[in-house]
Amino acid sequence: MKFEIKKEVLVTSMNKVVGVASLSKFIPILNGIYISVADDGITLIGSNGDISIKTLIPKVLNDETIINDIEVGSIVVQAKIFNDIIKKLPSKSVSISVDAENHIFVKSGKSKFNLNGLDSTEYPKLPNVSDETSFDIPSNELKDVIKETVISVANTETRPILNGVNIQSANNSLKFIATDSHRLSQRIIQVSEVSELESITVPGRSLLELNKILDGTNTPVKVCFGNNQVLFIANETYLYSRILEGNFPDVSRLIPDSSTTKIRASKKEILDTIERASLLSKEKGVIKFSVNGGLMAEISSNTAEIGNLKEELVMLDFEGDDIILSFSAAYAMDGLKAISQDEVLLNFNGNSRPFVITPTEDESNLQLILPIRTI
Amino acid sequence: MKFEIKKEVLVTSMNKVVGVASLSKFIPILNGIYISVADDGITLIGSNGDISIKTLIPKVLNDETIINDIEVGSIVVQAKIFNDIIKKLPSKSVSISVDAENHIFVKSGKSKFNLNGLDSTEYPKLPNVSDETSFDIPSNELKDVIKETVISVANTETRPILNGVNIQSANNSLKFIATDSHRLSQRIIQVSEVSELESITVPGRSLLELNKILDGTNTPVKVCFGNNQVLFIANETYLYSRILEGNFPDVSRLIPDSSTTKIRASKKEILDTIERASLLSKEKGVIKFSVNGGLMAEISSNTAEIGNLKEELVMLDFEGDDIILSFSAAYAMDGLKAISQDEVLLNFNGNSRPFVITPTEDESNLQLILPIRTI
Repeated sequence: MKFEIKKEVLVTSMNKVVGVASLSKFIPILNGIYISVADDGITLIGSNGDISIKTLIPKVLNDETIINDIEVGSIVVQAKIFNDIIKKLPSKSVSISVDAENHIFVKSGKSKFNLNGLDSTEYPKLPNVSDETSFDIPSNELKDVIKETVISVANTETRPILNGVNIQSANNSLKFIATDSHRLSQRIIQVSEVSELESITVPGRSLLELNKILDGTNTPVKVCFGNNQVLFIANETYLYSRILEGNFPDVSRLIPDSSTTKIRASKKEILDTIERASLLSKEKGVIKFSVNGGLMAEISSNTAEIGNLKEELVMLDFEGDDIILSFSAAYAMDGLKAISQDEVLLNFNGNSRPFVITPTEDESNLQLILPIRTI
Repeated sequence: MKFEIKKEVLVTSMNKVVGVASLSKFIPILNGIYISVADDGITLIGSNGDISIKTLIPKVLNDETIINDIEVGSIVVQAKIFNDIIKKLPSKSVSISVDAENHIFVKSGKSKFNLNGLDSTEYPKLPNVSDETSFDIPSNELKDVIKETVISVANTETRPILNGVNIQSANNSLKFIATDSHRLSQRIIQVSEVSELESITVPGRSLLELNKILDGTNTPVKVCFGNNQVLFIANETYLYSRILEGNFPDVSRLIPDSSTTKIRASKKEILDTIERASLLSKEKGVIKFSVNGGLMAEISSNTAEIGNLKEELVMLDFEGDDIILSFSAAYAMDGLKAISQDEVLLNFNGNSRPFVITPTEDESNLQLILPIRTI
């Protein structure tokens, strides 16, 4: 096996696969990166068993030959040290070759590294995922969906199904929901063509890894489902993840379809006020929110030993009953930060029912938070 | 006690004193910041018992009144929470007042914080340091001295005197030395007027705190010694530190005054090569350096399980005997990074004696490293 490549191209592609590889502790070969060289390009694979990422480097890119001196073959390199080394190489180009005993020779400028590789036949095969059930979504929209929903993903051993984002299809739309049973995030997107999709739940961890490799342009990402696996294809990069087993709870009944109190406010103002109030409440602190007539809401918090805060929030609009309730400052800040728009609607149903935050002119993204009972 | 101040001015001044305050675990009052308000301005003090920092905010700065509504008095505020709060205040100005029960009222825009303060009479007094023995040094030069010497400060309980930088005067010059007994850093500076100074040793930790408050301009910093204390005065900020007890070892005999091998090289090239070599040696790894005739040095490293590296270094100049020795890559990188110039001289005295790195045209800064014996 042999090839010569631009250092920068190799570094960029390694970055996509190395993060997931170095996470594995139990299967030694998964601490490595699989490198396969063919006549038309190079394939890199990193995996932690649950999530695998494959990326292709074509021999010719934009009419420029970026891989030279090719001899077909494959090897597994130790992920961390190989990645550290190629980043620090002195020259713009690097030449890599492997002998019959899996010794790897890395040459760049006056630097010569010899590394011990691992037998590539021991590297696990990637799952087979057909593209029978699939849909396309622009990279930037998928990034938004992840940002809006992963905040509510749970981290629990007792109900593992809540550790993911649930995806369901209905009438050319897809609904993404996550909940940790204290809050819920929902995003609905329109898709042009989608095969009817059973409810599937993708681990939050996989979506966070996916987010790192998405470029945030409007290039479509293909999402394929099958064999308990989901596959995301973004340009030349493939992310495979297992799907969580079990039934995602039917949480849509939690989302109220009307409200008794409606507030419109500036997202930045309400976020800043809650952030200040959280300084005077314990970790994941509870703050109090009340409206008692008029256009002023009051946000307050209190920690006996340290002190207390009271702050008035100017609402842009208010309609309905007075309210007084307590909730987690951290959950409210997460929900508000997940909204990109400048103005938000807060919809309440009394002092003990969940309330809902949405952008003012867009109901496709919804953050629901349960109040906390206080004395 | 009462005052109104520009939020930014208070935040900047708090930043200078808060770092050292929040380090204390044993004396509760030291987790606070002492605030004293007088007719001509405000004094803030933070301390961890060993290091104290005092900073003054004048009422009038550059003909602009920045403190208004003054009522004389003093209080101790809880450092972390007070600092977090003032950074997040909504308005450009903040008004602070204290009642007879040490309750603190912070008001800014629509935000109102009430905090519990501590009795300011319980706050320890600052040490008295006369300016009888003192010298002036520009802020930027003092920053350089710290950068060049603290790298060799030890962190040991058995010989605490090595946990500081030793300062001695001789003929209008000051010599700064630090050593952890594996390496040594020395810097000599010229000072116009200096009272004869006994050898004193300032804790490395104090110098790192000092470095944070130095602005790096050519404004002179006044350094005063007395009563087992050293005091640095930089503009309106005062740093007090205790001096380490005991005699600093006489290490000048370790510094060779001649050499049998002289090498001149580009600092960046040698640094990059050592950094690459360190990737293939264990933590604080040992690398090998050899010259065998000619203008090529060879740097190499080896870790049995992973692999090895060999790299040739182009020297700009070489004079004297061939050499082959091993040393710590981390120490060599620290020493090289502490040198600001682009070219360095390496002076060797055989394969088992310490070697010295200096900038090519400046012997005032010197980094000495002991080789490591290998088989």
